[in-house]
Amino acid sequence: MLDLWNHYPIIARKLEAVNSLINQRLTTQNSDIQNLLAACAQKQGKLLRPGLFLLFSQLGDPQQQDETQLFKIAASLELLHRASLIHDDIIDDSPLRHGTITIQANYGKDVAVYAGDLLFTVFFQILIETMNGTPYMEYNASSMKKLLLGELSQMHARFNKTQTIDEYLENIKGKTAALFKLACTEGAHFGHADKNTVTLAAQIGENIGISFQIFDDILDYDSNIKILKKPVLEDIGQGVYTSPLLFAIANHPEKFAPYLDKKQDITPQETKQVAKLVHKYDGISQAKQLAQTYTEKALSDIDQLPHSETTNKIRKIALVLLKRSF
Amino acid sequence: MLDLWNHYPIIARKLEAVNSLINQRLTTQNSDIQNLLAACAQKQGKLLRPGLFLLFSQLGDPQQQDETQLFKIAASLELLHRASLIHDDIIDDSPLRHGTITIQANYGKDVAVYAGDLLFTVFFQILIETMNGTPYMEYNASSMKKLLLGELSQMHARFNKTQTIDEYLENIKGKTAALFKLACTEGAHFGHADKNTVTLAAQIGENIGISFQIFDDILDYDSNIKILKKPVLEDIGQGVYTSPLLFAIANHPEKFAPYLDKKQDITPQETKQVAKLVHKYDGISQAKQLAQTYTEKALSDIDQLPHSETTNKIRKIALVLLKRSF
Repeated sequence: MLDLWNHYPIIARKLEAVNSLINQRLTTQNSDIQNLLAACAQKQGKLLRPGLFLLFSQLGDPQQQDETQLFKIAASLELLHRASLIHDDIIDDSPLRHGTITIQANYGKDVAVYAGDLLFTVFFQILIETMNGTPYMEYNASSMKKLLLGELSQMHARFNKTQTIDEYLENIKGKTAALFKLACTEGAHFGHADKNTVTLAAQIGENIGISFQIFDDILDYDSNIKILKKPVLEDIGQGVYTSPLLFAIANHPEKFAPYLDKKQDITPQETKQVAKLVHKYDGISQAKQLAQTYTEKALSDIDQLPHSETTNKIRKIALVLLKRSF
Repeated sequence: MLDLWNHYPIIARKLEAVNSLINQRLTTQNSDIQNLLAACAQKQGKLLRPGLFLLFSQLGDPQQQDETQLFKIAASLELLHRASLIHDDIIDDSPLRHGTITIQANYGKDVAVYAGDLLFTVFFQILIETMNGTPYMEYNASSMKKLLLGELSQMHARFNKTQTIDEYLENIKGKTAALFKLACTEGAHFGHADKNTVTLAAQIGENIGISFQIFDDILDYDSNIKILKKPVLEDIGQGVYTSPLLFAIANHPEKFAPYLDKKQDITPQETKQVAKLVHKYDGISQAKQLAQTYTEKALSDIDQLPHSETTNKIRKIALVLLKRSF
């Protein structure tokens, strides 16, 4: 899964260039800060957003494409994502992210606040270089805003056992799907695809994003730290109740109350017990069904795209991302 | 001092409009988050940056001015400033700011991280509305970057007794003067002043900013909580060594070492002792001299501006800001 793009050598090669660009942009003459920036630039994760952007850009007309512009926009998406992760890790107090020590754990929370902010400014600088004066500036700003409102909303819903699935979906539309939507839409637009394709790309991106996040939340109950490389089941103790738990609670609230009423004082042993109950009371299967709904929406829109090698690749990637069971 | 603009009724009236605009822009349909945004929108401080912006805009041609645009840009400056304050307060663990409880103290550090981020997005949205496609987009992004690099540099210099005055000046050029410079430059430019005036405005803004910050640092040693409405002498315990202390250390390092070597374990009593030593060993007077140098640079540039009622007002405001002794 971490080697997702290795099956797509053209994308993988382009992502190397995007990574070099990120490294280049995260430099400063101030030697005190250079180490910190280098840590922020370090290759992490799956580069999903820039990868999807590059893949969707292939739906357009290669004759009209400006590769430098495309690499920069791909980098901007990854920078926005990383900035938000650096700030998330402060909030979650996370020691690890993708198996690597987090900025907040390594440099302290105070440095991490400014490091995230700094990545936001580099993100904006790249936007200004590549799309200044176009409506895509506002699309980026409002996507960033949606992402943050989703995070804030999720934070506000902490320890709320009666949160509805609709509320949960609203939050993940912001915190995850907004950026997937942006990546796919920008890919099609700046790749010079036709208008209809750009509209479809937006829908596909959003639905892939929603389904991806639901699967991510399922993995919290279905995996272990070795594979995921992040502490599993940390969500429950932090009061982040995701769809598997919310479905199971709705089925048998009385089974969960004794544990969840302890809120942050729940023990690791009790957390494991809650995870077992989530399995027992159909939380996992119902969440998988929910994810499936959004996967099918995405696949049905992918079928509307012009038939091409790229469309086939998009379908494959969507299936890999949305049926992962690692 | 808090009523700074009351002597300038036109600016004061315009600042009311700017404040309403900030309130309008910090709203969301999400009722959970609305209270938080309202707290971020609450009028605070002296509105120095938007005030300077509006004042400098009066150097231009009123016939060509777009008042809506000017109010929006004034609001953008205040939003950038407030976003950075919200993040500063997380780092300083400050309970109070301008006599008001801080976002981090009221809502928690986690909420404050996202709240600051959210204000950055509103800042960018307003820029996009008012100056999309112009080089001022990049000027704003790079000013924000300078501000953050200044903050990070200052953080890196914590507890460093051997920090030079040049290094100190470099940091405050970023963390404070960059935004003053931006405000004055944008005021002249978007007020449709001539090119020479815009260049002078940039220099004046930067030098006012430097001098202002030096005075702010002096006040930490020279005032008390009642007047300043923020905890005094908090800098020393946090390892932020500003010019009054740096000058005094350079004069008699051996007097300070016994206290400062305790770093964050210094007691409030010892902090007061350090403050006394700063007075005794000429820290205050030398810092005042340093501030004076930058005030004079600013005044000399103000004298180059076309003679007008506005130029007189700018001179007065500069003198009030830079000779404050409250």
